[in-house]
Amino acid sequence: MPPKPPLVLPPDVPSYLSPFLPSLITSPSSPFLTLTYATSLDSALSFLDSQTPLSGPETKAMTHYLRTKHQAILIGANTAVIDDPALNARLPETTLSSQPRPIILDPRGRWDVSRSQVLALARAGRGKAPWVITRKATSVPPEWEAALQGVGGQYIRLASSPDIDDRGRIKWRDIMSALAECGIESVMVEGGASVINGLLAPENINFVGAVVVTLAPVWLGEGGVAVAPGARHNKGVRVPVARLKDVVWRQFGQDVVMCGRVRGD
Amino acid sequence: MPPKPPLVLPPDVPSYLSPFLPSLITSPSSPFLTLTYATSLDSALSFLDSQTPLSGPETKAMTHYLRTKHQAILIGANTAVIDDPALNARLPETTLSSQPRPIILDPRGRWDVSRSQVLALARAGRGKAPWVITRKATSVPPEWEAALQGVGGQYIRLASSPDIDDRGRIKWRDIMSALAECGIESVMVEGGASVINGLLAPENINFVGAVVVTLAPVWLGEGGVAVAPGARHNKGVRVPVARLKDVVWRQFGQDVVMCGRVRGD
Ligand SMILES: NC(=O)c1ccc[n+]([C@@H]2O[C@H](COP(=O)([O-])OP(=O)(O)OC[C@H]3O[C@@H](n4cnc5c(N)ncnc54)[C@H](OP(=O)(O)O)[C@@H]3O)[C@@H](O)[C@H]2O)c1
Ligand SMILES: NC(=O)c1ccc[n+]([C@@H]2O[C@H](COP(=O)([O-])OP(=O)(O)OC[C@H]3O[C@@H](n4cnc5c(N)ncnc54)[C@H](OP(=O)(O)O)[C@@H]3O)[C@@H](O)[C@H]2O)c1
Repeated sequence: MPPKPPLVLPPDVPSYLSPFLPSLITSPSSPFLTLTYATSLDSALSFLDSQTPLSGPETKAMTHYLRTKHQAILIGANTAVIDDPALNARLPETTLSSQPRPIILDPRGRWDVSRSQVLALARAGRGKAPWVITRKATSVPPEWEAALQGVGGQYIRLASSPDIDDRGRIKWRDIMSALAECGIESVMVEGGASVINGLLAPENINFVGAVVVTLAPVWLGEGGVAVAPGARHNKGVRVPVARLKDVVWRQFGQDVVMCGRVRGD
Repeated sequence: MPPKPPLVLPPDVPSYLSPFLPSLITSPSSPFLTLTYATSLDSALSFLDSQTPLSGPETKAMTHYLRTKHQAILIGANTAVIDDPALNARLPETTLSSQPRPIILDPRGRWDVSRSQVLALARAGRGKAPWVITRKATSVPPEWEAALQGVGGQYIRLASSPDIDDRGRIKWRDIMSALAECGIESVMVEGGASVINGLLAPENINFVGAVVVTLAPVWLGEGGVAVAPGARHNKGVRVPVARLKDVVWRQFGQDVVMCGRVRGD
């Protein structure tokens, strides 16, 4: 393959994003969390079990810029397994110290870090070593643990019941404190749908400091992986799951990017 | 209730919309169709069985301006039954001749036109008389027919099998020719989800001349009425249902409006 052309950031993007970037004053117990994903007009992130090209090249440099503004990027186990994403920032002149830390939420130890792109990139000095958040009770093959430690990464083993819900999900409160304890002050959550739906639940939504959604003018069709948070009620009446405020939309090519903050009502 | 303040159209909206408005050169057999709806970040048009405030006041004048640029507005029976919408253009100085013709797609005769807002408005000279598209075999109470004829409206009785599919849906080809025969050269389809999903199906998508979607920065949550067109395959591989081109996004308050045309691939 010929080398890809370098990503070029439109000059106004830093000022567009700046009101939504992690602020310097963060809480000691909880990193600033930016929820970000690319979606379609029918709220699908991808077809089932595949990485689906959604947004055009114009938003790509923006995403990579956003990555450099966070100390960590977090994704769910399915995204790691299906996409094997690089998770590093590929803007020219990005130094290793401004690379985000890749963090994979893999409670049952399903993701083989030893053969992953993030590991290869860490080995090559082109990305930070990954951390994998897993459950205390989960055992992983020793060669995965060795590969991870070999590049300076780690398994972060979290919570036993009652801090785990019936689907084996770790409470976001515990994920956030673990990240804070490890010195992470800002984290960009990039998906997939299950992680996003979890964060939009009433008990977690207040962890979300900013939302950055890229929307492509396409309908993917039924049966894909979709952002579809659970219904919310107030005194028996359906209410929206979450509404955003301070919203700014900006067109990138055929796509649009929306930045906003969660409204506290 | 105090009278509502008059709708004010931002001065640049006509030029923003103009590339997407019905063109003067229309096909004699098929009106220019604009597909338009307001949606949420999770592709929901409303909670089940209720009209749900989604978009803010800023897009309202735009919708009403768009209505004056079409000879007809078409909605599905559920929207008529649940919302009882006015379907007229309420911009100051809209004359009766520039009001769109309300058209309700009601194959089984479920909608009581005699008690509807559109009928009251037609009677008051504030909107055109509605037309109701129904099936040849459908019989409606004589008082509905009388009320409709009383304001100069009509039932348009369409198609017997094999032009009706197994869910009793009339083919869009037949709806479009019927409208053309009645002299309608442009129609704005305003929903609901079932009508929109039908138009996005491969056999109908080419009827769509322009798409105007308003998007509000809110997640409504699972179980609402959602735009979710059926999956599409090409040689056994999942492909997007439809992609848009020539897309222009414009922010209105906290919302965004997207105009585009269906890409022919
Ligand atoms: N368009 C985009 O922006 C975008 C971004 C990312 C991914 N994607 C696509 O999304 C798809 C994957 O999405 P997905 O919804 O299937 O999966 P996902 O969110 O990537 O991963 C889900 C898994 O992560 C773990 N997890 C999630 N929340 C957890 C919690 N609170 N505690 C512990 N573990 C938790 C669980 O693992 P266990 O099942 O092992 O318990 C869960 O099944 C892929 O097709 C990918 O291409 C798209
Ligand atoms: N946000 C927005 O922009 C927006 C706009 C409009 C409506 N809405 C909301 O959407 C909801 C209603 O949506 P919906 O999906 O339930 O219903 P809908 O699309 O309004 O109406 C569906 C009905 O229309 C008839 N129909 C549709 N396609 C047809 C065809 N090709 N031939 C013949 N008849 C056809 C069928 O009637 P039969 O069942 O009798 O066969 C069908 O069940 C309401 O809650 C409303 O508030 C939102």
